[in-house]
Amino acid sequence: MSEFLHSRYRALSPYVPGEQPRDRSYIKLNTNESPFPPSDGVLSVINRQAVSDLRLYSDPEALVLKEALASEYGVGRENVFVSNGSDEALYFAFMAFSEDGIAFPDITYGFYRVFADLLHIPAKLVPLREDFTIQPGEYEDIHMAVVIANPNAPTGILLSTDEVERIAASNPEHVIIVDEAYIDFAGTGASCVPLIGKYRNLLVVQTFSKSRSLAGARVGYAIGDEALIRDLETLKFSVNPYNVNRLSMAAAAAAVRDRDYYQETSSWIVENRDFTEQGLRRMGFEVLPSKANFVFARTTRMDGAGLYQGLKERGILIRHFDSERIREYNRITIGSRENMERLLAAIEALLA
Amino acid sequence: MSEFLHSRYRALSPYVPGEQPRDRSYIKLNTNESPFPPSDGVLSVINRQAVSDLRLYSDPEALVLKEALASEYGVGRENVFVSNGSDEALYFAFMAFSEDGIAFPDITYGFYRVFADLLHIPAKLVPLREDFTIQPGEYEDIHMAVVIANPNAPTGILLSTDEVERIAASNPEHVIIVDEAYIDFAGTGASCVPLIGKYRNLLVVQTFSKSRSLAGARVGYAIGDEALIRDLETLKFSVNPYNVNRLSMAAAAAAVRDRDYYQETSSWIVENRDFTEQGLRRMGFEVLPSKANFVFARTTRMDGAGLYQGLKERGILIRHFDSERIREYNRITIGSRENMERLLAAIEALLA
Repeated sequence: MSEFLHSRYRALSPYVPGEQPRDRSYIKLNTNESPFPPSDGVLSVINRQAVSDLRLYSDPEALVLKEALASEYGVGRENVFVSNGSDEALYFAFMAFSEDGIAFPDITYGFYRVFADLLHIPAKLVPLREDFTIQPGEYEDIHMAVVIANPNAPTGILLSTDEVERIAASNPEHVIIVDEAYIDFAGTGASCVPLIGKYRNLLVVQTFSKSRSLAGARVGYAIGDEALIRDLETLKFSVNPYNVNRLSMAAAAAAVRDRDYYQETSSWIVENRDFTEQGLRRMGFEVLPSKANFVFARTTRMDGAGLYQGLKERGILIRHFDSERIREYNRITIGSRENMERLLAAIEALLA
Repeated sequence: MSEFLHSRYRALSPYVPGEQPRDRSYIKLNTNESPFPPSDGVLSVINRQAVSDLRLYSDPEALVLKEALASEYGVGRENVFVSNGSDEALYFAFMAFSEDGIAFPDITYGFYRVFADLLHIPAKLVPLREDFTIQPGEYEDIHMAVVIANPNAPTGILLSTDEVERIAASNPEHVIIVDEAYIDFAGTGASCVPLIGKYRNLLVVQTFSKSRSLAGARVGYAIGDEALIRDLETLKFSVNPYNVNRLSMAAAAAAVRDRDYYQETSSWIVENRDFTEQGLRRMGFEVLPSKANFVFARTTRMDGAGLYQGLKERGILIRHFDSERIREYNRITIGSRENMERLLAAIEALLA
């Protein structure tokens, strides 16, 4: 820290991304990336001409991408906000809508606490139940903004749209942010996007990083009432109008059009999640009921940190959070079948 | 604006980017883009494998790009911060270093005022002299942060490194931000990067958008003392750790390696700037002495808005700012020779 740093930020604990070690090559099951490459449409849209056109700014209105998303989700273009990864949409939503504070689960995506700290927003941490499910009743009539990752991370557990709806309905004066980063692995009817027209205070955030195999392109989006979207645009145009670059914008629009490919790869990941869960359970693991592209599991045969470390030594990275309540667990991304087989074999060897 | 928007942001006037009209195709001389495509190295690094790897997150440490920049500028990797366009580096610098307020010229890059408003930072606007030069003495012993675009925008006028050095030396307790977006068009010895080792409070911000033909890739960087860079990293890791996407990161690193190409294209732009200035002066324009890839000019034969509008009707976009002191001027990007010839011919026709 320099002596010049604003006092407001001196106590800040930044977010810690999943490790990216460079000492050797690993099977990476630690950051919830897809084992599949982007679709052919993405590969063909990033051609020589597109690279040559990098001399020109990207469209600050993100028109082409907004239209693709609006058509895909059956909403208007004015209901869509586009961001540099969904983290940026969440950041702007925290800035915009948390004047009275924000509530979220005690165990959830780690960035919510960081945003609240950074922006000096009072945060109300609502404990998950013993079984790691969210207690939706705790968020009703809460008189502040709410953010819920659904499915939740790192647990993978899904809240029903009915439950989210009750939270939105009981807090008409505050914005309910539903972070659906993993929703495409949760089956049909799991998303809250269809509720957008009904609740002016509902903002759904999604990402191209998981089911659409574009983590490295950094594109996210929010869908909500036109007035909420306008507020997010006001902040974006006051921070970074050209927030999404040309190639990522084109890649994302192509990905939306290649719906079939991503539905297929997402289904495949769900099947492989079942395979992985079964393998872990056979070895005595307790696995939370995941609706995401990862599982969250523990075993009484080895502590959480030990399992993480043992796998790392065998060239497999998973994610361990050294936090209260969850340090016996590890979050394991669903990768290719071959990699999951190698993971299960490595765990078997470790426990032997 | 929604009723949910934080009161802090209700009076915000966002930045207005140069227009991107879609009604017809224009000769775009309004956003200071390069007429040259990116170098061959950039074109070859964005290949099928790189697109396929978009399934993986980008490196939040930006290691490869930081090493390329460090080697290019003769500084350490720990002296380099990488951002989603230089606007993001400026945003974080405003957040981090402006606790006592920030001073900048009354006529300069419009985003400084927006950042100050957004972040509720007291802003001290220091008038340019009548001839639009910066009065460096006004920034000495000023007891707050300072940001200076050098060359300044939209004037194009350069302040010498000696003058910047005096500002930095006289304000040891505050950070002096030098925004060198256009420095590669200013000739050798114009950049303040060599002063970095000498002044711990000096932060130089540059961009890949202008001289390196990568406006659409959104990559900027800051060079400064290790402690300043650490502060910027703290904010980045609290806002958006994966702020630069994979393809832009690779493109930028390749661009740094292709130094010769960009030196050549920048020299060519400087020659074309001279050509354009001469053409405008021949028609009676007053042209400020530009060291950037644009010129700022006015004529008594037509008002600023009229010239802008007349050229737009003829399919040529330039940038007009409807602000006090400068509304008789227009900012004209230096494009290809052919486009500058068409611009001059169109102006001639308008004035006839």
